[in-house]
Amino acid sequence: MPVTDSIFLFAESREHPMHVGSLELFTPPPDAGPHFVADLYEKLLSVDQVDDTFRKRPGHPVSSRGYLWWSLDDEVDLEYHVRHSALPPSGRIRDLFVLISRLHGTLLDRHRPLWEMYVIEGIEGGRFAVYTKLHHSLMDGVAALQLLRRTLGTDPDSYETGAPWHVPRSGDRAQSSDGNRSSAGPWRGAVRAVRALAGEAIEAVPTTARLAQTALGHHHVALPYEAPATILNVPIGGARRFAAGSWSLERIARARRAAGVTVNDFVLAMCSGALRAYLLEQNALPEDPLVAMVPISLRAKERLDAGGNSVGVTLCNLGTDQADPLRRLAVVSASMGQGKDLFAGMTPLQALLWSAANIAPLGLAPVPGFVRLTPPPFNIIISNVPGPRETLYWNGARLDGIYPTSVVLDGQALNITLTNTADTLDFGLVGCRRSVPSLQRLLGHLEQSLADLETALGVA
Amino acid sequence: MPVTDSIFLFAESREHPMHVGSLELFTPPPDAGPHFVADLYEKLLSVDQVDDTFRKRPGHPVSSRGYLWWSLDDEVDLEYHVRHSALPPSGRIRDLFVLISRLHGTLLDRHRPLWEMYVIEGIEGGRFAVYTKLHHSLMDGVAALQLLRRTLGTDPDSYETGAPWHVPRSGDRAQSSDGNRSSAGPWRGAVRAVRALAGEAIEAVPTTARLAQTALGHHHVALPYEAPATILNVPIGGARRFAAGSWSLERIARARRAAGVTVNDFVLAMCSGALRAYLLEQNALPEDPLVAMVPISLRAKERLDAGGNSVGVTLCNLGTDQADPLRRLAVVSASMGQGKDLFAGMTPLQALLWSAANIAPLGLAPVPGFVRLTPPPFNIIISNVPGPRETLYWNGARLDGIYPTSVVLDGQALNITLTNTADTLDFGLVGCRRSVPSLQRLLGHLEQSLADLETALGVA
Repeated sequence: MPVTDSIFLFAESREHPMHVGSLELFTPPPDAGPHFVADLYEKLLSVDQVDDTFRKRPGHPVSSRGYLWWSLDDEVDLEYHVRHSALPPSGRIRDLFVLISRLHGTLLDRHRPLWEMYVIEGIEGGRFAVYTKLHHSLMDGVAALQLLRRTLGTDPDSYETGAPWHVPRSGDRAQSSDGNRSSAGPWRGAVRAVRALAGEAIEAVPTTARLAQTALGHHHVALPYEAPATILNVPIGGARRFAAGSWSLERIARARRAAGVTVNDFVLAMCSGALRAYLLEQNALPEDPLVAMVPISLRAKERLDAGGNSVGVTLCNLGTDQADPLRRLAVVSASMGQGKDLFAGMTPLQALLWSAANIAPLGLAPVPGFVRLTPPPFNIIISNVPGPRETLYWNGARLDGIYPTSVVLDGQALNITLTNTADTLDFGLVGCRRSVPSLQRLLGHLEQSLADLETALGVA
Repeated sequence: MPVTDSIFLFAESREHPMHVGSLELFTPPPDAGPHFVADLYEKLLSVDQVDDTFRKRPGHPVSSRGYLWWSLDDEVDLEYHVRHSALPPSGRIRDLFVLISRLHGTLLDRHRPLWEMYVIEGIEGGRFAVYTKLHHSLMDGVAALQLLRRTLGTDPDSYETGAPWHVPRSGDRAQSSDGNRSSAGPWRGAVRAVRALAGEAIEAVPTTARLAQTALGHHHVALPYEAPATILNVPIGGARRFAAGSWSLERIARARRAAGVTVNDFVLAMCSGALRAYLLEQNALPEDPLVAMVPISLRAKERLDAGGNSVGVTLCNLGTDQADPLRRLAVVSASMGQGKDLFAGMTPLQALLWSAANIAPLGLAPVPGFVRLTPPPFNIIISNVPGPRETLYWNGARLDGIYPTSVVLDGQALNITLTNTADTLDFGLVGCRRSVPSLQRLLGHLEQSLADLETALGVA
């Protein structure tokens, strides 16, 4: 088992479940009968060939020390892994969030392949949802989103089941391994490459960082450990809160064009305003601006798995000390621009080392006392994973939203990951239940932050 | 924290959740509207005084070594602990079992008071259920059943909420502590006394056992480590299977009177027949008879918490090698009778030590290799916890059944605990999902075993 896989198994405890996943929301086809979802569930169970990724479990499940290896289960008890659930009769979206909060806070069973899928019916408007949970050692969040997307199609009349764990009968194992590799996504590549160069990076990074800082010579580039202490940067407990929301891509596109910034910069400013309002409400806004860790694509047109340096990581000054929405947007956009300029002037190795310097502190979070005794390297991870722009279907049901459910860590009690469907930008918010009270209020603050930006930009 | 509490926290891992609980099944009152269960749920959340037992959490949640102490949380996040759930539309009892299997297999969060309660609606026949889960370090299964029973009443028109964690406004803390103590039940007293005498017992038990064996001089008294190896006595995984069923008390009373045995003996014979059929079906019936560990009440009329010696533990020869149901019943009844005779001739200290000798091997289960390398001390725990004979109500809803959900352990992959409501004997079966396949088939075997006994006794 590669070190990059086992590190997520080692780091896991009851307090730090290391799984990622997503919540997909569907509307059944107009002609769906009352048994539509139950039938879909039965179809999922009837899959008889299971991909290797979904048969992997740790060879020595109990130990949390020593060398780990993967076992492949010949028989997968699909009735265990795939679960048919329902909301109470009220069926409100907030009931769905409560259920997902709960499901995202429990550990996977290491005696079995490390995944679970829940098919949840009884959501208002006749909708249903699918929550998928995969161990981070199998794949990261981006790869999980890509994998789920592969089960969807653009044809509303196609009723092929599309279970993510299905190996088509024509496919052989070799092909399925390739599939795994390409589904591993940019993050895994980056992390793997960073780890492989760990020795070199530890020596080289401070120099690289200092060089870069000197070369740029101004203050907008955020550096690790310059982030203020906040209520979000504390040791965490095992329970989670989840909330999610969608915003019209058209609405965001109009506003960001008026501002002359990228969608990503605009979304970061939207998050910044929401975080500022949330922290003010909690009486916990620090004087200094929050710093977000933001994965960025360096060569968007390349194949995602082409190399470790296709994705970089930059730190973004969120300007949360600014009350004015346009000033916040300007600070965010300038900070992101400088982060990208920095990468543009780097060799691939330098880019990798710079990313490593930014994410390396995460690897220290499991060290006892580290989170309490050191300032946070950054305050929050905000990750925007591009999705396809077509309307997608699953067995005739229309995908209305896909909300990432990511990992929170000691010192990183809140995570915002977003992606998109055909017409909407979908935000998935995961927080530690104890450290991030009233997480759901962030949804209102996101809307208000967007509205404030629209007003200031004259596109309200 | 007493050693008896912390031992259950030390022993816990993802594979061995150490919580107990029960599933209660209710029929709403005839005039209940569609929001009956939702309103009940809201009422549960509105409780503003929480009993100490439901505010306790480990003072150092992460460590699995060293001294543990209890913290009392001032604020209890009831929305976290009390959960509103539902079955998929089919609402079958087997869907309920699937849900309980799942809920019983996840760990409680040690950063919070160690309990959860699920209010589950959407069960066929308009019914709803309550599944309660409490850490074994707070109370044992018998105490948990007693605690839940205290929330019920005999008046169908009483709508007092009766949340188990509620401290009445008139009660002060001192009273509530008394309440805790009396809810601790006979098992806890027995275990505590056994542990307190551990040093003495370790020396004395072999002698006592040998003395008792010699004194009795016949083979029906089962002794530890004489049980055969079976598929039920293996290391376990973290997932569970749950099934439950009710049988008419009247039907059982008629049969046991015809046989001239106690209800408990009859029920053990019923279990024996079911286990025989199940193991035959799995092609795994050992030649030698299975041995059950059976708690028995020594002085039923005393206050349950009066002392450590009011409950004893005996080993029962289940006679599973006998094909004839009446012969099995005779073996079981003789074995139980001799176990009780043995206790009758003992001083309280001897009775305690004898019980200690019977249950002591359980304490060794967490020792690596113990389960694999030693023969099982017994094959299964079968526990019959007497319940009240009146029809009970909760906020106007009638209790139709109460099914214990107990702990399984390495080497003890199946547990049968039963109790009763007004008219039925209620069996709760908990098994390790991996080691006990098709657990639900035991329900059919229990019915067949009862029918076979009835036929043989001429009361069919």
